[in-house]
Amino acid sequence: MTAQFFAPVAAPQHPRAAFADRHIGPSPDDQARMLAAVGYSGVDALIADAVPAAIRTGRPLDLPPALSESAALDRLRELAARNTVLTSMIGLGYHGTTTPGVIMRNVLENPGWYTAYTPYQPEISQGRLEALLNFQTVVSDLTGLPVANASMLDEATAAAEGMALAHRVSKRGSGDRSEARKPDPHSGGLGGATQKDTEPGTFLVDADALPQTVEVVRTRAVPLGIEVVVADLSGGLPDGDFFGVLLQYPGASGAVRDLEPVIAQAHERGAQAVVAADLLALTLLRPPGESGADIAVGSAQRFGVPYGFGGPHAGYMAVRDGIQRQLPGRLVGVSVDADGAPAHRLALQTREQHIRREKATSNICTAQVLLAVMASMYAVYHGPDGLAAIAQRTHRRAAEIAAGLRAGGVDVVHGAFFDTVLARVPGRAAEVVAAARERRVNLRPVDADHVAVACDETTLPVHVTAVLEAFGAAPAAETPVEAIPDDLRRESPYLTHPVFHAHRSETAMLRYLRRLQDRDVALDRSMIPLGSCTMKLNATAEMEPVTWPEFANIHPFAPVDQAAGYVELIGELEDALAEITGYAKVSVQPNAGSQGELAGLLAIRGYHASRGDERRDVCLIPSSAHGTNAASAVMAGMRVVVVKCDEGGNVDLDDLHAKIGRHGDRLAAIMVTYPSTHGVFEETITDVCAAVHDAGGQVYVDGANLNALVGLARPGEFGSDVSHLNLHKTFCIPHGGGGPGVGPIGVREHLAPFLPNHPLRAEAGPDTGVGPISAAPWGSAGILPISWAYIAMMGPDGLRAATEGAIVAANYLAARLGPHYPILYTGRNGLVAHECIADLRKITKETGITAEDVAKRLIDYGFHAPTLSFPVAGTLMIEPTESEDLTELDRFCDAMIEIRREIQRVADGGYDRADNPLKNAPHTAACLLSDDWKHAYTREEAAYPLPALREDKYWPPVRRVDQAHGDRNLVCSCPPPEAFED
Amino acid sequence: MTAQFFAPVAAPQHPRAAFADRHIGPSPDDQARMLAAVGYSGVDALIADAVPAAIRTGRPLDLPPALSESAALDRLRELAARNTVLTSMIGLGYHGTTTPGVIMRNVLENPGWYTAYTPYQPEISQGRLEALLNFQTVVSDLTGLPVANASMLDEATAAAEGMALAHRVSKRGSGDRSEARKPDPHSGGLGGATQKDTEPGTFLVDADALPQTVEVVRTRAVPLGIEVVVADLSGGLPDGDFFGVLLQYPGASGAVRDLEPVIAQAHERGAQAVVAADLLALTLLRPPGESGADIAVGSAQRFGVPYGFGGPHAGYMAVRDGIQRQLPGRLVGVSVDADGAPAHRLALQTREQHIRREKATSNICTAQVLLAVMASMYAVYHGPDGLAAIAQRTHRRAAEIAAGLRAGGVDVVHGAFFDTVLARVPGRAAEVVAAARERRVNLRPVDADHVAVACDETTLPVHVTAVLEAFGAAPAAETPVEAIPDDLRRESPYLTHPVFHAHRSETAMLRYLRRLQDRDVALDRSMIPLGSCTMKLNATAEMEPVTWPEFANIHPFAPVDQAAGYVELIGELEDALAEITGYAKVSVQPNAGSQGELAGLLAIRGYHASRGDERRDVCLIPSSAHGTNAASAVMAGMRVVVVKCDEGGNVDLDDLHAKIGRHGDRLAAIMVTYPSTHGVFEETITDVCAAVHDAGGQVYVDGANLNALVGLARPGEFGSDVSHLNLHKTFCIPHGGGGPGVGPIGVREHLAPFLPNHPLRAEAGPDTGVGPISAAPWGSAGILPISWAYIAMMGPDGLRAATEGAIVAANYLAARLGPHYPILYTGRNGLVAHECIADLRKITKETGITAEDVAKRLIDYGFHAPTLSFPVAGTLMIEPTESEDLTELDRFCDAMIEIRREIQRVADGGYDRADNPLKNAPHTAACLLSDDWKHAYTREEAAYPLPALREDKYWPPVRRVDQAHGDRNLVCSCPPPEAFED
Repeated sequence: MTAQFFAPVAAPQHPRAAFADRHIGPSPDDQARMLAAVGYSGVDALIADAVPAAIRTGRPLDLPPALSESAALDRLRELAARNTVLTSMIGLGYHGTTTPGVIMRNVLENPGWYTAYTPYQPEISQGRLEALLNFQTVVSDLTGLPVANASMLDEATAAAEGMALAHRVSKRGSGDRSEARKPDPHSGGLGGATQKDTEPGTFLVDADALPQTVEVVRTRAVPLGIEVVVADLSGGLPDGDFFGVLLQYPGASGAVRDLEPVIAQAHERGAQAVVAADLLALTLLRPPGESGADIAVGSAQRFGVPYGFGGPHAGYMAVRDGIQRQLPGRLVGVSVDADGAPAHRLALQTREQHIRREKATSNICTAQVLLAVMASMYAVYHGPDGLAAIAQRTHRRAAEIAAGLRAGGVDVVHGAFFDTVLARVPGRAAEVVAAARERRVNLRPVDADHVAVACDETTLPVHVTAVLEAFGAAPAAETPVEAIPDDLRRESPYLTHPVFHAHRSETAMLRYLRRLQDRDVALDRSMIPLGSCTMKLNATAEMEPVTWPEFANIHPFAPVDQAAGYVELIGELEDALAEITGYAKVSVQPNAGSQGELAGLLAIRGYHASRGDERRDVCLIPSSAHGTNAASAVMAGMRVVVVKCDEGGNVDLDDLHAKIGRHGDRLAAIMVTYPSTHGVFEETITDVCAAVHDAGGQVYVDGANLNALVGLARPGEFGSDVSHLNLHKTFCIPHGGGGPGVGPIGVREHLAPFLPNHPLRAEAGPDTGVGPISAAPWGSAGILPISWAYIAMMGPDGLRAATEGAIVAANYLAARLGPHYPILYTGRNGLVAHECIADLRKITKETGITAEDVAKRLIDYGFHAPTLSFPVAGTLMIEPTESEDLTELDRFCDAMIEIRREIQRVADGGYDRADNPLKNAPHTAACLLSDDWKHAYTREEAAYPLPALREDKYWPPVRRVDQAHGDRNLVCSCPPPEAFED
Repeated sequence: MTAQFFAPVAAPQHPRAAFADRHIGPSPDDQARMLAAVGYSGVDALIADAVPAAIRTGRPLDLPPALSESAALDRLRELAARNTVLTSMIGLGYHGTTTPGVIMRNVLENPGWYTAYTPYQPEISQGRLEALLNFQTVVSDLTGLPVANASMLDEATAAAEGMALAHRVSKRGSGDRSEARKPDPHSGGLGGATQKDTEPGTFLVDADALPQTVEVVRTRAVPLGIEVVVADLSGGLPDGDFFGVLLQYPGASGAVRDLEPVIAQAHERGAQAVVAADLLALTLLRPPGESGADIAVGSAQRFGVPYGFGGPHAGYMAVRDGIQRQLPGRLVGVSVDADGAPAHRLALQTREQHIRREKATSNICTAQVLLAVMASMYAVYHGPDGLAAIAQRTHRRAAEIAAGLRAGGVDVVHGAFFDTVLARVPGRAAEVVAAARERRVNLRPVDADHVAVACDETTLPVHVTAVLEAFGAAPAAETPVEAIPDDLRRESPYLTHPVFHAHRSETAMLRYLRRLQDRDVALDRSMIPLGSCTMKLNATAEMEPVTWPEFANIHPFAPVDQAAGYVELIGELEDALAEITGYAKVSVQPNAGSQGELAGLLAIRGYHASRGDERRDVCLIPSSAHGTNAASAVMAGMRVVVVKCDEGGNVDLDDLHAKIGRHGDRLAAIMVTYPSTHGVFEETITDVCAAVHDAGGQVYVDGANLNALVGLARPGEFGSDVSHLNLHKTFCIPHGGGGPGVGPIGVREHLAPFLPNHPLRAEAGPDTGVGPISAAPWGSAGILPISWAYIAMMGPDGLRAATEGAIVAANYLAARLGPHYPILYTGRNGLVAHECIADLRKITKETGITAEDVAKRLIDYGFHAPTLSFPVAGTLMIEPTESEDLTELDRFCDAMIEIRREIQRVADGGYDRADNPLKNAPHTAACLLSDDWKHAYTREEAAYPLPALREDKYWPPVRRVDQAHGDRNLVCSCPPPEAFED
């Protein structure tokens, strides 16, 4: 056949085929429509008008060009292949575990769970709230303490929070423990201390505590002026005055000791006893609560959550009666809805109001919900018998190793242990460890003469044999003896609730997970327009590597050469983040934004101290700031001074200069969010930075809103010295229903010596660092591939386009909603940044319909509410992100506008002011189907206010939850900075 | 510390920790309760009473002990690592493709999609029906033909079905094409042929057709007496009389030729034109429909479905106006529900009634729904522009290769091509292929002098360079010229429907998938008690390996040494299946049960022929048999003779002997399902086998109900010569919403020489085999790890326990439901096997409430209906499987019993006979919320007949779908065997 054609092949078109085109919602055509609605003909013009020239960078992002999803995954596979997965029997708080496939695939790999937001809106969060209540029950039952929270960031920070809690409740005021247990008539019968914060004191730490825990506790104690004393407590307490004591149970060495005598001694001296306990061991051992512990902390990692080279995992905390109100973090409780039906919700939020009146000693905002859900489901799936069997099997392996060692003439140091055997091998530790490694097992060299061997759920007879061979021993012939003392055996029941007995087959478990998931609204159903929370796409290609064995199964303290792929990936990610932010150096260790804030402020503190400027302890914080800022400053040993904002929501420069003048050489830093928490690019940011620098202070730019800057401006260029980033906001780590978060910090060169480091891994930070801020050297390393993949697949152009897209979308929403709801703050040219605030206050005054009513009514329209009453009470802060396409943005606007019409009907008298679809929202199917419908509006008006809802309707499982005892600040539990002023 | 304890460590308990304990629903305690309800104190006693001693095996399963889930996955990883993933540029109908992550994770890895059943109940299947409708639209639009079905098993069998369809409509009666296009006044205006089946004729096949297609067509033609003539059609048709012609477009050689002249010639001779076309190429090439094709077939594999070493993938078929009624397989159409709202459903089921009156030429029951969904979603995600861009990029790579070859002095055979370049390299083919392999690229050696290179979506410039280097060439400097002739360029639009334009971002796609999934009931919501369909657990650990790159990305014709892990796995699986069934040899090639049936009957046919017994062509089939049995027999060239069943539902031995006597040495075989389709262990099975054997016939035991035998009895031991197994029933391959199925056959030694083989892979079957039955050498190899894992993790004891559990569960259901609904058939001691039939006929007579009403009312209770009106009209066949726990079984029984009470209310006059919750079921939320509720019962009675439904309620998206034009046999579209009798 003769070719009849000589046209050149058309250049291949890629209509929205690049990853960035999939990540960014609107098509170019749609974006043009959106720009037109805002009054612009092109994105550049809008950006030029929205973003102050003073902060714009002149240098495009110097990052590699975008990789396709396939290419990025190929590269990640290469990196994964550079990790070496050995059997780690290292222990130290991290243990091998088998994630049941049904949980891995249907929680960790299911967007219905991982894209959910923190359950501040209980009506659309009943599924994950139930899962968290299960988690609390697991922790409470196993520790033998009545109240547990819904997770902590990790065991070491939980211990540090335990120290802070002990500090609050001990010594001063109600410090006497017996007194603290009395109901406090002023606090609704819940007891607890309400005294002014304490003076520093001494916190005693068990020498057998996990080494990373000791150091994290120290990092947190130093700025508070608390002295940490580490002592061998096996013979009892040393002399001295302590407000608390931390015990490890079992010890890092594996030793199992009776806690009761030491706890009794502590109580006699008025100290609180904090016990860091292993949850699996507690299925066999007498729980801390029964030995008198006031506080228990630890990790739920070994309940089915892979190592991930250190995280994320759920830490936990449980407390005795009388100090629940002081518990940091989140607590789920049961309430009732408008029909009196039981409903889960975040409980005891009043304790946060209480904290408001104190100097903060916790800044926790994010928990580890996704991991707590996994751990809770692991307990649900195995039940008490299953967990006990796993513990017994684990213990038996350890006993077999001990028996084999003894038979082989190796000295076993502790007679009582659970899973960890400490062997004395004088001068031979390195040799034994090397021999084990040849057998593909990692052991822990404690010192030159001791090796520790930790068993776990995954330990098989072949591992026992390999370990013994490494010691030059062999399995013993006889059945090993129990190494758990009779008087420490657990007698009390646990996990007696039916939920821990009902889902024992994979089918039943699968359905339970589906049922809970279906109760919730996550990103896989509809947009979650939460201001400041940046609920953007968490792409599958980003999530895939997380569960690859080569990333999932690396122990955080495995020899670094076994984690070569991780180290390379982390290095590349840190470099990319430095390039994006304009900083010299980045540390990924902080495993939440709050931890990043603390780390950043500690770097400032360290810097001032290194120059002999210890006096600098004033931290300026604008009144619009996130509450965590102030809490973090207090934790960093600083005094909070609030700077006013003007009517436009911007930092009041006059007040700033006045405050700088007043505090002079006491000025340590200013913490400022940019764009501001009002969603505005403040014009004066460079002036603010200059003024603070001129006064010898450092500038901390909170990176919560970095998604409005990437590719357009760099904090490190426009005047900031340090920022934390929220990888779970800007860089696509999913919110997981309220965690994991990741909060790396970036610093300019002069602060780099004061980044976090780690006692067990020199590679993780500078020698001169401020100590570890998280338990693991690289924090939640296991999810860093997500952000790596996002950056790699977006490339420099895609990252910038995402930022522009977010700004376009926010301005489009402001333009569409503006005629219906006043937009509270705007910047230059009447534009907003990446979010906008709809002001309901006038509407509320006129009609009685509140922002909360609108938030709840949105549920009837199938939407998660925007951020409610933050940063301004009575408003809704809306952040669309770049990932929502025009159809969804319009669907949301249509809902908001229709709701505005409903409000108008209330105003006009068409709806009763008390009995209308807004006040009664949300509506369950059950309430609508009731045979005796008595409302002044129809069922169809309630259920289908827009026709499209007939096609796709989300049915909330409960009606409005009674928050009567709760705090209505649904953004973040952290208190506003005013509460922290002296 | 001194140890105070010397008790030996308790032997580790594993309370339901083994995989079998997770797979089997009821706990031992619950099973004891269930046995007690049936009147037994132990499982052994029940089994002894239920299963005839004559068939019980004396030899336990000789399989390796059960592996843990972790150990099985470790072993699978080892096997996976033995596969070598190169870049395959082999083509031949299989092409590299990128599965969008959002589709992989949320369809292929999501139980909401993969555990769904065939959408016979449209009200709970609207999601997958919409996806299939999208698939049909893709196929119809791209082929340019008006009607496409909802998938075929693969391209080669689709071509064979195309031949059969051409056979039906050509030559005889309405064979003239122009006549066939006239509306047929007797068939509702849809046209089509209704004539008696044709005599054999000749089918002409393009020499440039895919080699496996040619051979599958031949395998299917032989027993029908059709002559297959393969000829070079590039110069036009050869002389002779044909009823049809098969053209490949583009050809296997890559050549793109204008089809129109050949098709015109064919039509002139009264032949139908079947075109096997590449869907991606059709985005650029003039579609077959515009060239006059009558039928188009092909594969949708390259639309995002991984190779999987051959499958599963969705084949397709589309036809011109006038022959829709003859289309094999499933067709989705749009209807309306009881409220007049649009609703999807399986359409044109009347054409199956039409087929009933004919000799069958298709036995298709299973489609490839899961893969069709994936392919359709790939098209939805990319849209027409995206698909065209992918095609253009693919074409450009091919053009670059052609240009480089020409520049390097290599002869390019065809000037017009799409993605495949045929290079002439006299004497050098092997050398070039080897050189490419060194560069990690697989090319196709066509013969000693030719090499073909196929490009695809994943081909990158580095691959172009590598390929050219292998030829000793280099990329050409200039831009390559188009190799698609201008007059063959596609001009017509496609995928203009909004659905192909609305979901372009990953977020939008994710939500679309979630929305559709939420409309359906799959195993992740509730039990699916479908008799004969065995909807058991599809465990995560079984599913995980399917998407590992080492299994997913192997081309079926990659050199076998690159698939060493696959070959080993397949060998182990075949051996295990042989051990379980008692056969000598197993072939996994048939990729559906129907294909297994055909393969098994062809083996019998081959066996008789090898002994000179060609006359043996009578196949006895009991009247209770699945319709496919008869259809398969016809396809195997046999005559169907129905054997009566007695009142107990068992084979009537007198009639059997009479029929044997009548047909004497014409007897080829008997096909019998065991346990019977009535769910009963027939006592006489060994007598049946002996009688047939005595008469010189072979025994085919349909393995559909093998799940009631595994570990207890082996068909190969109790008298059967051959069986097909349904891996998607007994061995846990998920149903995928109506496919993939896998239907291996097992045979006794004397039939082993007549197993399927494959023209391209000698390893896949015996030289003496009957030819290929599927396109790929090992069928749907990509999902065989599922069954491998199931067998490995259950072990011999677990497999037997599963069988026992299924029998216990069915008898428990029979015991609980028996007092409310008569149980139609039972075997010895009043027991059933693994399923039971609830007889509604008397109830219907008395109350007007039909089995269908009960089936639809069950939706209001959150359940998928049991099998409706099969094998006996007016009944429900219920199969609980071993995977449902007691809670779920009781929930189902409670629903059935409450429904019986509702029926009683109709009988008692408490409910109106026409306007009651049964007749009006299912109820959507919208119909219940209607402001003008006018029914004679309350909304709450309709929605919440049981209190637990208030907790968890499935809302069907549509009310009862109007099936007025449809066939009400909801079990399987295949007709009962009577329809096939002469």
